[in-house]
Amino acid sequence: MTLPVIGLAEITAIATPEVIFTAVREALIAHAEARTAVPPPMLLEFPDHAGDCHVKAGHVAGSPYFAVKIASTFASVNNGLILVVDATTGVPAAVLSDEGMLTSWRTAAAGALITHALTPPEVDEVAVLGTGEQALLQVLWLSKLRPITRVHVWGRRPDAAARLCQAFEAEGLDARPDALEAGALCVITTTAARNPLPAEAFRNAVHVTGVGTDMPGKHELPVELFENALVATDDHAQCLHHGDFGNAVRAGVIDADADVSVGTILADTNRALSHSIADLTGIGATDAAVASAVVGNRFSTTVE
Amino acid sequence: MTLPVIGLAEITAIATPEVIFTAVREALIAHAEARTAVPPPMLLEFPDHAGDCHVKAGHVAGSPYFAVKIASTFASVNNGLILVVDATTGVPAAVLSDEGMLTSWRTAAAGALITHALTPPEVDEVAVLGTGEQALLQVLWLSKLRPITRVHVWGRRPDAAARLCQAFEAEGLDARPDALEAGALCVITTTAARNPLPAEAFRNAVHVTGVGTDMPGKHELPVELFENALVATDDHAQCLHHGDFGNAVRAGVIDADADVSVGTILADTNRALSHSIADLTGIGATDAAVASAVVGNRFSTTVE
Repeated sequence: MTLPVIGLAEITAIATPEVIFTAVREALIAHAEARTAVPPPMLLEFPDHAGDCHVKAGHVAGSPYFAVKIASTFASVNNGLILVVDATTGVPAAVLSDEGMLTSWRTAAAGALITHALTPPEVDEVAVLGTGEQALLQVLWLSKLRPITRVHVWGRRPDAAARLCQAFEAEGLDARPDALEAGALCVITTTAARNPLPAEAFRNAVHVTGVGTDMPGKHELPVELFENALVATDDHAQCLHHGDFGNAVRAGVIDADADVSVGTILADTNRALSHSIADLTGIGATDAAVASAVVGNRFSTTVE
Repeated sequence: MTLPVIGLAEITAIATPEVIFTAVREALIAHAEARTAVPPPMLLEFPDHAGDCHVKAGHVAGSPYFAVKIASTFASVNNGLILVVDATTGVPAAVLSDEGMLTSWRTAAAGALITHALTPPEVDEVAVLGTGEQALLQVLWLSKLRPITRVHVWGRRPDAAARLCQAFEAEGLDARPDALEAGALCVITTTAARNPLPAEAFRNAVHVTGVGTDMPGKHELPVELFENALVATDDHAQCLHHGDFGNAVRAGVIDADADVSVGTILADTNRALSHSIADLTGIGATDAAVASAVVGNRFSTTVE
């Protein structure tokens, strides 16, 4: 048995934004319609090396593949891979040695899709809180869905915010480190915060997308934001468990059954345009979808 | 980044019974002493293809590697692989494309170790219930630890029992399809039974090892066997959840805290020689141990 190991260069050539957007959108809708299998993730911790490893698995009904993803972070360095398995035989089909990039892209695509869906079409300025990879990617992927004329940045460290602005400028986007002052209508949070971010950043927001709450103890959004908001979650149970939706429920600001599925909103073109929040914690179904898209595309275009 | 995929031929050359016995014994003892990290396993089901996939992960404290195992069974055909990851950096170290054999061997080794430890030394006959791969391996691996002069076999299908006897004969072991009549002192159960096996097979048993209960709904051992028995479990919570120990606890035959760890018994040379039962459900720590042993051994003897 030979098991192909597909490296990042080949993955990047196959996994165009169009491929990723399509796979993630379909997976989120399938998940909202209970057409996915996503067991609870596993977590291994390595405190001696400032490390942890998340294992996520998923299958979208009808897909020829399912996927098991290993994503590790040791001393702030991400790593991992995705194993893709034939869903009709159980035989491993390929290892995607993606260095964590498919996770970055599916997170960016999920955020951009729901941000675009819930932000009024005329809005072309966006604020992003946080200065890491997702701060850059969330806005760049959103700019593939609608024109973005200006980015307002905020980070705890001014030097990191300045560097992020430079990165946006290099991509042709006007960017300024003024998210607290700007009061943008659309705000995206991408931090590892354990205490709510400054409330003033959200004072004019009609839509907020949060992608930072990936485990218990994380907290990005002031719970007051959830009052009277339309709340979209990528996975109800997971967002209740460790998303900011759960933080707001435990604070008594919103009912535990008040959320709707991100996938329901993506499938529905007659969406409500009220004040809205998307709470994204990341689901194995989107990992499975992008990994399956890469493998399916590769096997359809190469002779083994 | 190149990720070595180590195939079954190379794994077989490295993973001698001595390597496997050592790794499994150390992992079971470490697990009994709370020196392992083993998150709850994940299960994906594919009813349209008579398939399921178990994902297990584990780390033995101090080991340079941790492991994530994907084990699938579709239409009774096993498959899978083990991913081995550097436990100090999170970087994937190797994929063991073992076609499920390391799981077979670690299951055989764990069973043989505890069967040998809890069966009086003079016993040289054994009964095995079930006719699959583990029926053969449990006895063959036990025969590496003590002389076995005769094997008593039972299976629901007489033709399968006859074939298993032939397989034992081919390995130089006298075997007969008479486990129900023989009343052996040592009985090993290796079935996928959902209802208890015939009680007469256990009527003279001083030790029973059960390895078949790998998920809720499985049931091999008559619950009465657990009365006044020394019960050894490979993982207390897992055996309580879906092992025959749990079945006996729910039947009110034994207390939920009456078991001891397999690893405690393996570490203790002054063991009790009463009527005993070993309930093995399989733990990720042993997967991690054997996978780490293979990778560690390979990297120490080859130049990359």
